[in-house]
Amino acid sequence: MLGASWRMSPVRTLFPVRPMSKAVPSEHILTVAEIEKLLEEVFPQLHHGGRTVMVEEVGPMSARLRLIAHERHLRPGGTVSGPAMFTLADVGIWVAIFSHLGPEALDAVTMNLNINFLRKPPHGDVLVECRLLKLGKRLAVGQATLFSQGAAEPVAHAVGTYSIPASRK
Amino acid sequence: MLGASWRMSPVRTLFPVRPMSKAVPSEHILTVAEIEKLLEEVFPQLHHGGRTVMVEEVGPMSARLRLIAHERHLRPGGTVSGPAMFTLADVGIWVAIFSHLGPEALDAVTMNLNINFLRKPPHGDVLVECRLLKLGKRLAVGQATLFSQGAAEPVAHAVGTYSIPASRK
Amino acid sequence: MLGASWRMSPVRTLFPVRPMSKAVPSEHILTVAEIEKLLEEVFPQLHHGGRTVMVEEVGPMSARLRLIAHERHLRPGGTVSGPAMFTLADVGIWVAIFSHLGPEALDAVTMNLNINFLRKPPHGDVLVECRLLKLGKRLAVGQATLFSQGAAEPVAHAVGTYSIPASRK
Amino acid sequence: MLGASWRMSPVRTLFPVRPMSKAVPSEHILTVAEIEKLLEEVFPQLHHGGRTVMVEEVGPMSARLRLIAHERHLRPGGTVSGPAMFTLADVGIWVAIFSHLGPEALDAVTMNLNINFLRKPPHGDVLVECRLLKLGKRLAVGQATLFSQGAAEPVAHAVGTYSIPASRK
Repeated sequence: MLGASWRMSPVRTLFPVRPMSKAVPSEHILTVAEIEKLLEEVFPQLHHGGRTVMVEEVGPMSARLRLIAHERHLRPGGTVSGPAMFTLADVGIWVAIFSHLGPEALDAVTMNLNINFLRKPPHGDVLVECRLLKLGKRLAVGQATLFSQGAAEPVAHAVGTYSIPASRK
Repeated sequence: MLGASWRMSPVRTLFPVRPMSKAVPSEHILTVAEIEKLLEEVFPQLHHGGRTVMVEEVGPMSARLRLIAHERHLRPGGTVSGPAMFTLADVGIWVAIFSHLGPEALDAVTMNLNINFLRKPPHGDVLVECRLLKLGKRLAVGQATLFSQGAAEPVAHAVGTYSIPASRK
Repeated sequence: MLGASWRMSPVRTLFPVRPMSKAVPSEHILTVAEIEKLLEEVFPQLHHGGRTVMVEEVGPMSARLRLIAHERHLRPGGTVSGPAMFTLADVGIWVAIFSHLGPEALDAVTMNLNINFLRKPPHGDVLVECRLLKLGKRLAVGQATLFSQGAAEPVAHAVGTYSIPASRK
Repeated sequence: MLGASWRMSPVRTLFPVRPMSKAVPSEHILTVAEIEKLLEEVFPQLHHGGRTVMVEEVGPMSARLRLIAHERHLRPGGTVSGPAMFTLADVGIWVAIFSHLGPEALDAVTMNLNINFLRKPPHGDVLVECRLLKLGKRLAVGQATLFSQGAAEPVAHAVGTYSIPASRK
């Protein structure tokens, strides 16, 4: 279920007056619990050294995740590192994709990722709000906007293209 | 004044619950008429062979432009060409930048532009909705989402970085 | 046949000591004359208003093209425009792809293009040296380095991803 | 001194017949030992959990580094992870920059990085060959091509833009 905080999320309101894609009815989107279970099965490294990435909410063509700031993501001065932000954006878009297409899309692989670092993030959690721009059977494109907890302006922005292998069935 | 169509625009509602940047009060943003006048002065090539790009609206950290489809932007099959979409995205972000910073930012130059072509656009006008992600004194980053007139899903998406030369004053 | 100027080209020597991909023996690469003939058939717009793009040479995983500077590619100050450089990079990588895969790859479409503008090009021709980084059956990735005639340092650099539709046969 | 392996490197021969930029005479480029010492001082995290990135050689406008494959960089199936390749490309270009500009350029920060993943890398070390495309006082752009040890075709390719803060002196 999507709570009140989701209703106020920028992701959901990105294209508010446009009809949503009919491709994926929202009742077919994986729940946060289903996603977290899949992540633990196929991608235990994500939580290597302590749980660091949490899926907060998913909705039509979108997902929001949180990076819990640990010492190993930090650079001198306490700022979250570029690779940690890259990983958060990449994982976020990938989660948005397979939450819509189902577990067979867990094999989706990043083909291209373009990231802009906009501001030095302060110490603290980083949120990523992902939005799918295209969700085809073999190809998906999504964007990810990263914010420091509580801040109005994004710290980074990424766009990624993913290839979805044909089902092994 | 921003009319009804603007209120329904996805650009304006991209970050609805976050406080807007204080850097540029909306009363200091150039109007559409001021922008069009500047474009005619400094960039007459844009209208070479007939007026093709129209600024529709500007608002805090955002701008919307329209590409009026002419024969010379088309590819076989009647689709708008990649270079025409590149130009629209690039001009759109540049307009968003100088409409906030004033005429001295007309010298802003594109350093990097990353564009994803998502769907083949049908024949017809293409709209671009631009949003500034960062607006510094020397550097700005913006994104551009392109739609075919009347369509729900974007045909292309771009992110660009612009260098703003120091004022000559 | 590749002449002396080609032997001195940076493109050919990009990976000089690595064995070339076996995928496309050089005797199967289209010749410049074959490429030019195909371009005139499928993409006459390229020469709209006078011949502007010339294919100079093709070789294993590479191609070199020239943009003949016309007034309509220029910006105030006599510099070649960003969209003209975008087009040159895009056409160059596309030519490299279909010259290796044959006419059925003329349908290849640009999915993503990332371009960095490095220096203001002086008035004059612009050369593009393209190199394929991946040449699969359905997907190709190439880079394009743009130089002003006679200059040592590149004016722009682009990387593009192309989707190659399945043969209609 | 550059050894035999360097002479055979594709990086050095990228623009073999073009005059090199006069901006940085090679006698002013930091040596590998100087670079490694600086890295240990300012970026000890790079070696967190065991030494993983080695600078192999630097030359005019170029650098080559090696990622020593450790378990924590791997994905299921033994392949090097995307974030590990992103980090290698990013560090490689940054090393190329400050080895030319000196220790005051250690503060250079990544503004934009675009990465294409081309092939699944096998288990084993990954080499990155970096080449600077532009080396200004405030801005640098470089590309990074990543290879698996012993393989002819690249596993990934990246282009990055870096901002170099004004000297604090």
